[in-house]
Amino acid sequence: MIIGVLGAGQLARMLALAGIPMGLEFVVLDPAERPCAAAVARHIRADYDDTTALRTLADQADTVTFEFENVPATALAYLRKLRRTPHKARGLQTLQDRLTEKTLFSRLGIPTPAYQAVDSHEALVEALGRIGLPAVLKTRRFGYDGKGQYVLKAPTDAARAWREVGASPCLLERWVPFDREAALVAVRDLAGACVFYTLTQTCHREGILRWAAALRDARLQAMAQDYIGRVLAAVDHVGALAFEFFELDGQLLANEVAPRVHNSGHWTIEAAETSQFENHVRAVAGLPLGSTDSRGTFAMVNYIGGVPDARDVLRIPAAHHHDYGKAARPGRKVGHATVATPCVATALSSLERLLALIGEDALPRDARVAPLRDSMPDGAPVA
Amino acid sequence: MIIGVLGAGQLARMLALAGIPMGLEFVVLDPAERPCAAAVARHIRADYDDTTALRTLADQADTVTFEFENVPATALAYLRKLRRTPHKARGLQTLQDRLTEKTLFSRLGIPTPAYQAVDSHEALVEALGRIGLPAVLKTRRFGYDGKGQYVLKAPTDAARAWREVGASPCLLERWVPFDREAALVAVRDLAGACVFYTLTQTCHREGILRWAAALRDARLQAMAQDYIGRVLAAVDHVGALAFEFFELDGQLLANEVAPRVHNSGHWTIEAAETSQFENHVRAVAGLPLGSTDSRGTFAMVNYIGGVPDARDVLRIPAAHHHDYGKAARPGRKVGHATVATPCVATALSSLERLLALIGEDALPRDARVAPLRDSMPDGAPVA
Repeated sequence: MIIGVLGAGQLARMLALAGIPMGLEFVVLDPAERPCAAAVARHIRADYDDTTALRTLADQADTVTFEFENVPATALAYLRKLRRTPHKARGLQTLQDRLTEKTLFSRLGIPTPAYQAVDSHEALVEALGRIGLPAVLKTRRFGYDGKGQYVLKAPTDAARAWREVGASPCLLERWVPFDREAALVAVRDLAGACVFYTLTQTCHREGILRWAAALRDARLQAMAQDYIGRVLAAVDHVGALAFEFFELDGQLLANEVAPRVHNSGHWTIEAAETSQFENHVRAVAGLPLGSTDSRGTFAMVNYIGGVPDARDVLRIPAAHHHDYGKAARPGRKVGHATVATPCVATALSSLERLLALIGEDALPRDARVAPLRDSMPDGAPVA
Repeated sequence: MIIGVLGAGQLARMLALAGIPMGLEFVVLDPAERPCAAAVARHIRADYDDTTALRTLADQADTVTFEFENVPATALAYLRKLRRTPHKARGLQTLQDRLTEKTLFSRLGIPTPAYQAVDSHEALVEALGRIGLPAVLKTRRFGYDGKGQYVLKAPTDAARAWREVGASPCLLERWVPFDREAALVAVRDLAGACVFYTLTQTCHREGILRWAAALRDARLQAMAQDYIGRVLAAVDHVGALAFEFFELDGQLLANEVAPRVHNSGHWTIEAAETSQFENHVRAVAGLPLGSTDSRGTFAMVNYIGGVPDARDVLRIPAAHHHDYGKAARPGRKVGHATVATPCVATALSSLERLLALIGEDALPRDARVAPLRDSMPDGAPVA
C-alpha cells in the first residue's frame, strides 16, 4: 500500500518512518526543492493546488493524507472526488478559520476565552470594550508558531495591532492568565473509534513550543478527552488531531485544534506503545489502532534554529535525539529530543540538562506549574 | 553523517530506520537488484569483493558497517585501510569459521558442546566415536538458518551426512538435548564499553528462528553477559553482537555468535528503551549508547515465507507488524510481529494468537520451558 502525504516536512518524514516498518510506501507532494521527508519518500514537487500534480499523487497513492492543516480545501475535495482520501474538506475548512473553529467549540459546549470577530480598526476598538484587556488579535487564517498574532495590553495598542495583523479578517480573544498550557492528541479511525494519548503539559515562548512533558491528572485527562471527542465526531475526523488548552483554576479552556499529528505528541515515538505517527498512518490505511498507553514518564524539547551535537544530547540519561535533516534558520524547528524513563527524577534532571544544552529558559519552579509532578501511571514504580 | 552498510536486507533496512531519525543518512552495497533496504538508503549494486564499488562506498560514507557476518574479510580490510570502518577483519574472520569460533570459546573458558574438526568421511567416523550420538555435522563456513547442517542419529548416518554437507571443511558437534535455547544481544562502543539486552528464549524449527520471548532469570542473565563480554573483548568488537546458547540443567552452552544485529533482538524496536539497531548505529557512529532496559514483557514471531494480513495482526492486543517489503518465498524471512506489553497474560495470549495466525506450532506446555514465565522486571506490576 502506498500512502500519499500533502506536505513533506518533518511531520511527513516521521509519518513515513512510522509506516515503512509496516511495509507501507510513501509519496509526498510539496513545493519545496528538497523537503526533509524526501529522504524516505518519493517526492512530487508541486504547489498544493496544482491539479495535474494532485492527479499524479492520486495515481501513485492508494490513499492521501496531509501533514499541515492549511492544505487547500479544494485539493482535498479533488482527492475526495477521486476516492483517494478519507479526509473531508468541510471539517478541515471549519478548523482552518479561527472564527468557525471557536464557533464550533461554543456550539459543542467547550469553554473558550471570550472572542469576537473583527474586520476593521473600529470593530477592534469596539470589541476591546466588550472583551477587555489584555487581549490577543489573531488572523483568522494561516497562523502558526505565533505568527499573525498581536497581544494588546492597553487601549492605545489597538492602532499598532491593527497595522501589524489587521490586513486579513481577524479574531479578538481575551488573553488568558493561564496556570499551565496543555495539549491532548487523539486518533480516530475510519469507523469513528477514538484513542487518546496522555495529556501533556506544554510551554511556548514567542509563540513556539519549547518543551512538553507528561501531565498525569485523571480529572483533566477526562475533561480533555471529552472535549476532543466532541470535536473529532463533529468534524468526522480521520487520523490524529491535537487540542491545545489553557488550564486556569482547574478548568481547561480551548485554545486551538490542529487536525493532524502534532509537535506536542512527538514524545509518543519513544514513550507510547504506539506513536501518534504510526496510529495516524494506521487510521488512514484502514488498519486497527494501537495502544496509546505511555510508558514511565516523558518529556520533549524542541531544537529551534539549530541542532545540538548528538553526542552532547545522547550523553544525557534516557535522551533520544531527532534531527530532521533541515537547514538551520532562526526560529525554525529542526529537531527535538525526547526523554523517556520510568524514573521521574531522571526525567526531570534530563529535561533540565537538555534545556540548558540548547540555551532555553529553565523550568518554572512554582509548584503549581512545575512539570512532571505526579507524572507516573498509577501503581508504577518511581525509581 | 553518512553510514555505509555492506548488505541491504531487512537488517540494513532496520539499521537505516533507526538511524535516519537521528539525522544520519545511509548508503548500502548489495549485489541484489532491489534489496529491501534500498527503500530507505542509496543503493550501490555490486558484489562485496568489488574493489571499485567498495571505493565508491568509502567515498560516499563516513563509516561503514555490515549486516551479515559473511562479508569477505578482504573487503573489511580494504575499508579499514581507507579508515572507513571501525570493524577489524581479524575478529570477524575468527567468528566466520565454526572451528576457530569454538576454539575461541574454549580458550575463553566458555562451555560448548563437544566438537571436533572433520575433513573426510574417515575423520567423521573417527570423530563420531569420540563425540558420540546424536551429533550434528556442520560446514565450518557460510551456514545460516540451518543450512549446511546434518543431524546424525546412528553410526550409519555418517555416509549420507558426509555426502550432504561434507563438500567443505566441517565440524562435528555433539547434539545437545537442551531444555531451552536462549540468545543475548550486546552492543560494544568504540571505547570498549558494553551494554546488554534482556536474555531471550528462542525457538527454532528446521533451523529457522520461529519465535523469541523474554527470559528473565538473573542467574542466566549474568552468565550470558559474562560469556558475551569475554567474546566482545577478545575480538575487539564494535557494535551489536548476538550469542546463541543451549540451556541444559541450568547451564548455558555456547552454540554460536553472530557479530551483528540479530533476529533474536528484533523485539528491542518496541520493547527496549533503545533498540539494537539504534545502539549498533550509535556504536559505529561514535555516539553514546542508549539504555537497553526492556519495558514490561515481550515476544516476537517471525513471518517465514509470507506476510499475514496486517489487519489480522494488528487486531491482536499489543501486537506490532513488520513487513520487510520482500518477495514471498518458502523459508524466507519476510517480516515479524512483536508483542510488547506490561501484562504477561496479554503477552502470552497474543503470542499464541500470532503463532496460530501464521500456522506455526503452538507453544510448549512443559512448565520448565513454557515461555514468559517470570518475565517481568523486578517490582513491575503484572496487570
